[in-house]
Amino acid sequence: MRVSKYLLSTQKETPANAEVISHQLMLRAGMIRRNASGLYSWLPSGLRVLRKVEAIVREEMNNAGAIEILMPLVQPADLWVETGRWEKFGPELLRFQDRHNRDFVLGPTHEEVITDLVRKELSSYKQLPLNLYQVQTKFRDEVRPRFGVMRAREFLMKDAYSFHLDQQTMDETYQSMYTAYSNILSRMGLEFRPVLADTGSIGGSVSHEFHVLANSGEDLIAYSTGSDYAANIEKAESPMPTQTRQAPTQELKLVDTPNAKTIAELVEQFGLAITQTVKTLIVKGAAEDAPLVALVVRGDHELNEIKADKLEAVASPLEFATEAEIRAAIGAGPGSLGPVGLSMPIIIDHSVAVLSDFAAGANQDDKHLFGINWERDLPLATSADIRNVVEGEPTPDHLGTYAMARGIEVGHIFQLGTNYSKSMNATVLDENGKAQVLLMGCYGVGVSRIVAAAIEQNHDDRGIIWPEAIAPFQVGILPMNMHKSHRVAEIAEKLYADLQAKGIEVLMDDRKERPGVMFADMELIGLPHVVVIGDRNIDEGVFEYKNRRTGEKQNIPFDDIIDFLTASN
Amino acid sequence: MRVSKYLLSTQKETPANAEVISHQLMLRAGMIRRNASGLYSWLPSGLRVLRKVEAIVREEMNNAGAIEILMPLVQPADLWVETGRWEKFGPELLRFQDRHNRDFVLGPTHEEVITDLVRKELSSYKQLPLNLYQVQTKFRDEVRPRFGVMRAREFLMKDAYSFHLDQQTMDETYQSMYTAYSNILSRMGLEFRPVLADTGSIGGSVSHEFHVLANSGEDLIAYSTGSDYAANIEKAESPMPTQTRQAPTQELKLVDTPNAKTIAELVEQFGLAITQTVKTLIVKGAAEDAPLVALVVRGDHELNEIKADKLEAVASPLEFATEAEIRAAIGAGPGSLGPVGLSMPIIIDHSVAVLSDFAAGANQDDKHLFGINWERDLPLATSADIRNVVEGEPTPDHLGTYAMARGIEVGHIFQLGTNYSKSMNATVLDENGKAQVLLMGCYGVGVSRIVAAAIEQNHDDRGIIWPEAIAPFQVGILPMNMHKSHRVAEIAEKLYADLQAKGIEVLMDDRKERPGVMFADMELIGLPHVVVIGDRNIDEGVFEYKNRRTGEKQNIPFDDIIDFLTASN
Repeated sequence: MRVSKYLLSTQKETPANAEVISHQLMLRAGMIRRNASGLYSWLPSGLRVLRKVEAIVREEMNNAGAIEILMPLVQPADLWVETGRWEKFGPELLRFQDRHNRDFVLGPTHEEVITDLVRKELSSYKQLPLNLYQVQTKFRDEVRPRFGVMRAREFLMKDAYSFHLDQQTMDETYQSMYTAYSNILSRMGLEFRPVLADTGSIGGSVSHEFHVLANSGEDLIAYSTGSDYAANIEKAESPMPTQTRQAPTQELKLVDTPNAKTIAELVEQFGLAITQTVKTLIVKGAAEDAPLVALVVRGDHELNEIKADKLEAVASPLEFATEAEIRAAIGAGPGSLGPVGLSMPIIIDHSVAVLSDFAAGANQDDKHLFGINWERDLPLATSADIRNVVEGEPTPDHLGTYAMARGIEVGHIFQLGTNYSKSMNATVLDENGKAQVLLMGCYGVGVSRIVAAAIEQNHDDRGIIWPEAIAPFQVGILPMNMHKSHRVAEIAEKLYADLQAKGIEVLMDDRKERPGVMFADMELIGLPHVVVIGDRNIDEGVFEYKNRRTGEKQNIPFDDIIDFLTASN
Repeated sequence: MRVSKYLLSTQKETPANAEVISHQLMLRAGMIRRNASGLYSWLPSGLRVLRKVEAIVREEMNNAGAIEILMPLVQPADLWVETGRWEKFGPELLRFQDRHNRDFVLGPTHEEVITDLVRKELSSYKQLPLNLYQVQTKFRDEVRPRFGVMRAREFLMKDAYSFHLDQQTMDETYQSMYTAYSNILSRMGLEFRPVLADTGSIGGSVSHEFHVLANSGEDLIAYSTGSDYAANIEKAESPMPTQTRQAPTQELKLVDTPNAKTIAELVEQFGLAITQTVKTLIVKGAAEDAPLVALVVRGDHELNEIKADKLEAVASPLEFATEAEIRAAIGAGPGSLGPVGLSMPIIIDHSVAVLSDFAAGANQDDKHLFGINWERDLPLATSADIRNVVEGEPTPDHLGTYAMARGIEVGHIFQLGTNYSKSMNATVLDENGKAQVLLMGCYGVGVSRIVAAAIEQNHDDRGIIWPEAIAPFQVGILPMNMHKSHRVAEIAEKLYADLQAKGIEVLMDDRKERPGVMFADMELIGLPHVVVIGDRNIDEGVFEYKNRRTGEKQNIPFDDIIDFLTASN
């Protein structure tokens, strides 16, 4: 492709309102343009990357035995009513009526449609297991679309759905998708990590997320230094404390703490060890007679809301009590709460259960209790894992300790069990002629999000650094003054033609631009290999080659360039 | 692909509510399934065809120098307000609000979005001409979706938009799209015809439709027996009469015609030549003082509403007067109308202007006038081309006569002029630094519709007959009793592997089904080449080959089959 015939709309300035680097670089490199909040057009070079990602995803899905279909974006509401998600799904589900006032949605996902399709289509258990996928446009009416195509409203997704009669084939297909997703991201040259994940609102039992690692990632991943164990912080299991609770050594003491509204202030003003303090958080309870529940974690720990949300005693979705509710129930403000004397269900983190001589709020404003001991000052409360894990503590497999990384979720696989098939009555006759409810799995890849994630992981201050497999073009040719130098034009054109003949994708900057502009654009759009040719090089009989990633430069003799670039690809 | 691992959902029965053969066969062959009115899922074998059509379209667009982009389906309403189509477009334009109560549409087309994109993106006239295309999902809320994917609500379309400063490059790009569209349909092995077309509501000047020829086509095409001239009947020009008007030979006579409500009855009952009669149709006028206008065509001709709609005197969109309006204005019913004594503007077809001694209604119920002559009985009215052409009359180029064919419109190219760029102020600075409004062309291919059109043209009573280039698989293998005969299984598996190694797409029916079912399914899904292998063939050392299109059968020795099938592909 010649730049003169292309729509290469690069920009020097960092665009306003683009918070993350991938969004900035995609705008600056002319990959995308915003049509409205969360709606983007893909310009030519952006679309080339998107299509490469799509092609790799498709190949690996086919290799894994999944079969491609295509379902509509517009879905009839009645299917969503069947599963109850018509009511349950928030305003992210865009609902509308057609000209005949019938209800429809713009599909944010396709569990309902595929389950309807399969329950009608399956005639025999012999057709199972079945794994159907599509690469298709989705719409989620995000309240605050942001980060460009990272969290857009309309986006491209690969979603697959598998159907089974037994857990064994469910496990096999799940494993094959795990492998396919690993292959997809490996082939794209991305550093990634599969992590155990919470199944969230989609439901189900087993689930893994696939994260592209990047410092800018929204998700925190806890992984083991000594094994493959890795989990989203939401899901990462805290280790059970190995120490046992010590006998009390301190008296219980009520202390005036007028200037200590936070754990940090308390610790500083009274010289306490933070690990000897606890925080008490009040949330809405699930039981009618327990409108509020107290959750207690160590002062240096953070409550894990996903874990807390799963507690039987706590109402889901988890909601914190307001200050007014807290005052009405306890008579003190949030800065002075503690477990002693609290007349509501208390759930403490496992690490709190082994504390002795610890400090907590006294449930009176501006007062704390020091030297608290379980079973002496208050009954030992029920304990559970309700906190985030922290760096350095042991992983559940005891093969290493937790380390932390940030990631961008680009894939998610789930075992859904019968969550959808049961409500939609998706059954098939088994060998004995008995109707069995199907087991389901679902497997998503954010195709457009991968493009942004790849940039978050691969860039420098000059622009994007594309991994070979998803670069819009493999090679850039920068001819210097080709409009004046006949020699340069001739050699550049020959190289351009020769590389194309070899099936290598080339972008040649044939504009009448200053070299500085051409170099800057080429760095910005991030092609892996750049070949410069000017009059001076011709005298020497060499091309100037520059590797975008390493920055390494070398002179390559005219005759060797094709072999050199073919070998690099 | 093995049928046992595939979702091949064939049906024996012709489905209810599928009116056209392509819709019936796509359902029966398991290519598509209906999700709701006008919404379809593409099952695996259907999607393979769709993707092949898409790939051919993409290749030819790239060959023609068009550049691929991707715009969103969901479009902000404000762009549609700018061009006035927010108001003008009917309920086919699906309008909805997002969670923040902002107006959006599901794009039935993308003139607004692309014009907005280009006006922002173009920095120099040097970037012109520019031809951008996408293969993308569209939505049109059809009042009565029908014929399966032929007229669905959600469908796949290739739409391209070109931008120009001058008519010369506009013409060149238009011609290149004309060629590309011809290449696309030729490569798919489809019989087609490009025809002059009306530009309709999209506006513009020059336009061609590309029709796949099929007896079931909704469109009537008038083409020349002696040249390339061809036009949609809506647009086909009537020849100017070569004869001149003869002098009157009959007296004007008022005749009682109580039983002649139609031209056919009049002609039969009074022994008139139908070519000596005229029909008078009353439509709404455009001028304030002419609420109604009379249109007169010969008794054997049909009014062309598209042509009539363009008359200055007629209100657009064309609307026929009601019987009540006709009675109020004329005092007679629609069966007794004629041009004599009519106090409203009259426009007659050119062929009516050369009549003498003709018959028409008398504007009194149950009475006609015979022997009418222009300039004696009434002034000669303004004449225009307001009728459909008929088979056998000369084409406007005088190189042949009109013949008729039916077609399915699968492509449409337009020169839009400044229709959109003017209202959206899409300009670029020309060489002299002066802002010029861009000229635009637009070019659409109904990707999903082509699949249905191909079937309408290529089928028999046993099923689909796929053209090679868009067949879901090239070769079908039918092993007889492979589950019992080890020899058959071995040879079938080897053939399957060998063909795949050659890059030939194969579907092998490895089900435990009766041969009759397997043969019927294979005919129904319409793969071009079928290879049968059974124990008897093995004894003879041959495969039984059958060509789906010709029905021709031959025995091919084991060693020759790969060469034979490779040569057939």
